Amino acid sequence: MSIHPLLDLTASEVKHAAALVRQLHRGQQLTFKAITLEEPPKELVIQYFKAQENGTALPYIPRVAFAAYYFKGTEHFVTTFVNLTESIIEKTERMSPKYHGNVDFEEVGRVEEMVMKNPDVLVEIAKLELPDHLEAIAEAWGFGSDGVDDYHRQYQIYMFVGEKKNPDSNHYARPLGFSPVVDATRMEVTRIDWIPTGSGLKAEKTKPWRYVTPNEYVPEENELRKDLKPLRVLQPEGTSYSINSENVLQWQKWQFRICFNYREGLLLRDIRYDGRPVFYRVSLSEMTVPYADPRSPYHRKQAFDLGDVGAGLVSNNLSLGCDCLGSITYLDGLIADPAGEPLVKKNAICIHEQDNGIGWKHSNYRTERACVVRNREIVIQQILTVSNYEYILAFKFNQAGELHYEVRATGILSTAAIDPGTSVPWGTIVHDGVLAQHHQHLLSLRIDPAIGDYATGNQLAYSECYPMPMDDFNPHGNGYVAKTTIVDKPGGLDLDSSKSRVFMMQNDQIRNPVNHKPISYKIQVPPMQKIMAHPDSFHFKRAEFGDHSIYLTKYKHDELFCGGKYTNQSRGGDGIKSWAARDDKVVDDDIVVWVQFGMNHVPRIEDFPVMPVEILNVALKPVNFFTMNPSIDVPPSRQETNQSQLVSREATSKCCNASNPKL
Amino acid sequence: MSIHPLLDLTASEVKHAAALVRQLHRGQQLTFKAITLEEPPKELVIQYFKAQENGTALPYIPRVAFAAYYFKGTEHFVTTFVNLTESIIEKTERMSPKYHGNVDFEEVGRVEEMVMKNPDVLVEIAKLELPDHLEAIAEAWGFGSDGVDDYHRQYQIYMFVGEKKNPDSNHYARPLGFSPVVDATRMEVTRIDWIPTGSGLKAEKTKPWRYVTPNEYVPEENELRKDLKPLRVLQPEGTSYSINSENVLQWQKWQFRICFNYREGLLLRDIRYDGRPVFYRVSLSEMTVPYADPRSPYHRKQAFDLGDVGAGLVSNNLSLGCDCLGSITYLDGLIADPAGEPLVKKNAICIHEQDNGIGWKHSNYRTERACVVRNREIVIQQILTVSNYEYILAFKFNQAGELHYEVRATGILSTAAIDPGTSVPWGTIVHDGVLAQHHQHLLSLRIDPAIGDYATGNQLAYSECYPMPMDDFNPHGNGYVAKTTIVDKPGGLDLDSSKSRVFMMQNDQIRNPVNHKPISYKIQVPPMQKIMAHPDSFHFKRAEFGDHSIYLTKYKHDELFCGGKYTNQSRGGDGIKSWAARDDKVVDDDIVVWVQFGMNHVPRIEDFPVMPVEILNVALKPVNFFTMNPSIDVPPSRQETNQSQLVSREATSKCCNASNPKL
Repeated sequence: MSIHPLLDLTASEVKHAAALVRQLHRGQQLTFKAITLEEPPKELVIQYFKAQENGTALPYIPRVAFAAYYFKGTEHFVTTFVNLTESIIEKTERMSPKYHGNVDFEEVGRVEEMVMKNPDVLVEIAKLELPDHLEAIAEAWGFGSDGVDDYHRQYQIYMFVGEKKNPDSNHYARPLGFSPVVDATRMEVTRIDWIPTGSGLKAEKTKPWRYVTPNEYVPEENELRKDLKPLRVLQPEGTSYSINSENVLQWQKWQFRICFNYREGLLLRDIRYDGRPVFYRVSLSEMTVPYADPRSPYHRKQAFDLGDVGAGLVSNNLSLGCDCLGSITYLDGLIADPAGEPLVKKNAICIHEQDNGIGWKHSNYRTERACVVRNREIVIQQILTVSNYEYILAFKFNQAGELHYEVRATGILSTAAIDPGTSVPWGTIVHDGVLAQHHQHLLSLRIDPAIGDYATGNQLAYSECYPMPMDDFNPHGNGYVAKTTIVDKPGGLDLDSSKSRVFMMQNDQIRNPVNHKPISYKIQVPPMQKIMAHPDSFHFKRAEFGDHSIYLTKYKHDELFCGGKYTNQSRGGDGIKSWAARDDKVVDDDIVVWVQFGMNHVPRIEDFPVMPVEILNVALKPVNFFTMNPSIDVPPSRQETNQSQLVSREATSKCCNASNPKL
Repeated sequence: MSIHPLLDLTASEVKHAAALVRQLHRGQQLTFKAITLEEPPKELVIQYFKAQENGTALPYIPRVAFAAYYFKGTEHFVTTFVNLTESIIEKTERMSPKYHGNVDFEEVGRVEEMVMKNPDVLVEIAKLELPDHLEAIAEAWGFGSDGVDDYHRQYQIYMFVGEKKNPDSNHYARPLGFSPVVDATRMEVTRIDWIPTGSGLKAEKTKPWRYVTPNEYVPEENELRKDLKPLRVLQPEGTSYSINSENVLQWQKWQFRICFNYREGLLLRDIRYDGRPVFYRVSLSEMTVPYADPRSPYHRKQAFDLGDVGAGLVSNNLSLGCDCLGSITYLDGLIADPAGEPLVKKNAICIHEQDNGIGWKHSNYRTERACVVRNREIVIQQILTVSNYEYILAFKFNQAGELHYEVRATGILSTAAIDPGTSVPWGTIVHDGVLAQHHQHLLSLRIDPAIGDYATGNQLAYSECYPMPMDDFNPHGNGYVAKTTIVDKPGGLDLDSSKSRVFMMQNDQIRNPVNHKPISYKIQVPPMQKIMAHPDSFHFKRAEFGDHSIYLTKYKHDELFCGGKYTNQSRGGDGIKSWAARDDKVVDDDIVVWVQFGMNHVPRIEDFPVMPVEILNVALKPVNFFTMNPSIDVPPSRQETNQSQLVSREATSKCCNASNPKL
């Protein structure tokens, strides 16, 4: 047993798992949706950590793979746990027809090709009478759920117009008003939906296409600004981090294990600071994007970007000097392809250090001596492309003991056709004839804390501030107090800025030696509007995590995905709501904290054709975990090291005069 | 008249103003608190802009200085407006005794020196029986207000213990239990307050000092980490910005005027994008820091860092390679010293470009082509030291038409002595015997918008999202709408994340040519807990702006400081509440929007001895102001330009093993 129990599956393990699965179903052709590490039981892993620390015999922990696959061309969906160490099948199960495997882009490619050959679709396209230089483009969307004849696995195909001359023309600027529906098993078009393009429910049949000007993002189609000078980041003495062959990263007293799978993409395990455990596992658990347009078929538009698609499956191949600046290390991810073969996702993860301004500063006004340190960060990042949209997901650690989870939303808005002169309150016109419907992005960050150690339990608490009554003790009325409340049962909880409510994961068994408070990490998360869909809607039922900023549950094996393990055309009921409804002990126990955040995206025209990043950040910061500012030992910021360049006002570049009004 | 009406006073103008004031009070010795530009009437400035654009005759706008000063050694406080162009006094007024001039550090130095020679104070110090290597240190604080015998201008002196060997020893880690009170006019100690150091109201008389270990931030007193490798920023072709002799900066289609004064420090005027006006003036209007400890004398602890002290007066001399990285331009600020002489605040403003990650990205999953641009920003920054505490204040512009106002709170917590074994709910023990009291930071950003032009009025509106009823139009319950409300009267307004409420400054007269919405800029501001002090308290009355996230007023000359023009020992009633109570027209008119934000700082032990930056950000972003993403023309991010360095996993530095538990 030389393989660490938390190591991702290796290529040979993927092959081995696929071989054992194929053996199980001899004679069947299989289409794999996933082959991934089945996490070992947490108690065994903690035993493993202890044995490692003590130098005692390591516990036996078999390597287990989880495989999900279809009998090819059928709805026969199977999940199997393969014990790789013993080369045996531990468990295999044909899944209930209500569960579906995730979308994969190999299939999407085949679907889109098939649609474009379908005679009924071709008839509709012909009705458009497109100019010769334009072509119709089909784009497959997850079907979603509405309870209406939607048990079969299906795709909703949205249609657009693109320029033939440039395959990177922005077809999202030219959406069409008809939409084929595809049965994903039979791989055929089952019907064509006509879509309302006015302000009401009525959909018109396909007419000759009204010419709409392009709205391109590719540089060759835009006149680029010429006055941006290069800015480079150099680390002449190399990086401050090291990464070993198991992807264990060490940087500035932080140490953690970088992992990757088809579903979550990048995740971190066994995060320690100066040897002290902080988190057992931190990962994005799910993200849902419900849309506001009530009209069919848009009423089903609700992406679950991790469960429906897979953050690992759609992770970008990151390029040197494009996605980051400076000294960059890339790590590959490993998934399984539909044939069950290991597939390397090249450069799926990038790692670099960056400067984030001043870390701390104080000037003594008596001596005029300034002490200042810079705020160095390490960024571990992946980028997802989910059809039109992009998410840049990054873990950022700093020297002050903080872990930030940053989400940058960018990419292209999902668009719909709208008649000229029409406007609707559930979307914004972002281009002639183009409606970008309002939508929510609701994300859930799953935090499995291990504040201070793995031996004792944790608790979730929140701090609030209250004014003191104006009385003899507080005669001038300025007094106020902070009050901490322990959350004593599982469930959903909300922020309350009117009380400065801050949630903290704390270890009551380990007290700060100076002030005797429990050591803890607080959660700084921006408030969100909870999911707006009606509680009786499928949108609401499926997005089980979308109604509270915080969920607290007791740890249970295989409870990783708050929207359910199988979200594609899901009905709800398999996610966090049922876990949080258990009467579990969550005080001084093995808890999991789910942090929901997001944005209600009312599009601006400025978000098109590609939107400037909208940045969301969840910060986890130590509270009484250390005995002082942990970055107090960062060397001072000095010109000798930093070698900045003084540019006098007179020497600043003569840039073009900004005086050309555009609107 | 060759001087632009918005240009800061020049050194010769300061001299000229002082000379005219001295002439006015011949025979009197004067102590100047301020000599600064009196802003010309806005309508004249706008006439000036128009004339400049049209090449017609410029309107006559006299240069006027505002001077505030005392008859030396008296409470005779005078303010005078000096017309420099005509060398005449426009107006002079002896101020009511309820108004006081701001604190200045020349005076603070004299006060502290005087206190340390006062026999009564020396008696108290002697009672401490300090070891030979230690010394007592006096630190003057603004007196605050409680209505109890506080009409005279006073200082509250907090006492600490410092190491003789190092004048930069952190005396805040060793606070004492007595506090002299100083009459600032008579420059004498009027009494000594003994401070409660337990959990109750009782204060004990001075006893021999219990030895407390030091807690130092200076690098020579700490063992510094050795594994941080240099990170440098290079701009080999120079900066992308230019700054002219009047401090007009041009960068990436942005253009604005950088100004500076004793009160606000850095402020920006006439901000335009591609020639289109966006804001007439943006500045930090005020900041108040009320403390939570109800006991005397702490009940008066409430700093107004702009009004009581002056952001320009306490702005740091910024150092190359310490406060920023890369290519940096420094600008000096100019103030007047107590003698009325011009005083250059060297390097008070720093300007640099920085990379803030990806600006936008899209990958076409069909062609696998990625288009990505980086998010270049320009930062215009100042740093304040207000005794123990630091604020890093920055305007950040980007290529997507956004202006961010960033505040980094750092520096040293204000501390108080507390007996060992004691704890109180209004503060955190951050070191043996050291209490850091809870406090709020409430800041107000004043935005004088000119969305789209200077000719038409603006309006404040807010957008909210509401679910649609579940009915025949919305049978699946997913529908929701965005609704915009125009704010039709002045007053205070609040955020409401449960409705995704977003405030927008908009121009109803100028519509977006594509979607016909009013052009606007939205305000993204984090929610805050409003001021917690009792509405009958002086804390509350003085911090007039602290009870709403947004205030809307009609523009009126000289309404710049929302806590009142004179905050030192103020009583309230001179600030925004009365301006917002007027029955002014604020729709399609000349409006001013005040954005309040801040934090309720419940200190962590990690915030000591110097706190890691806590970052607050107010973002102003275009909404339907442009016809598309304004950064779509940013050149692609390319390795050829960026010259990043690939570091293989194997080549990452071997950094020290992080396995030394600290707690």
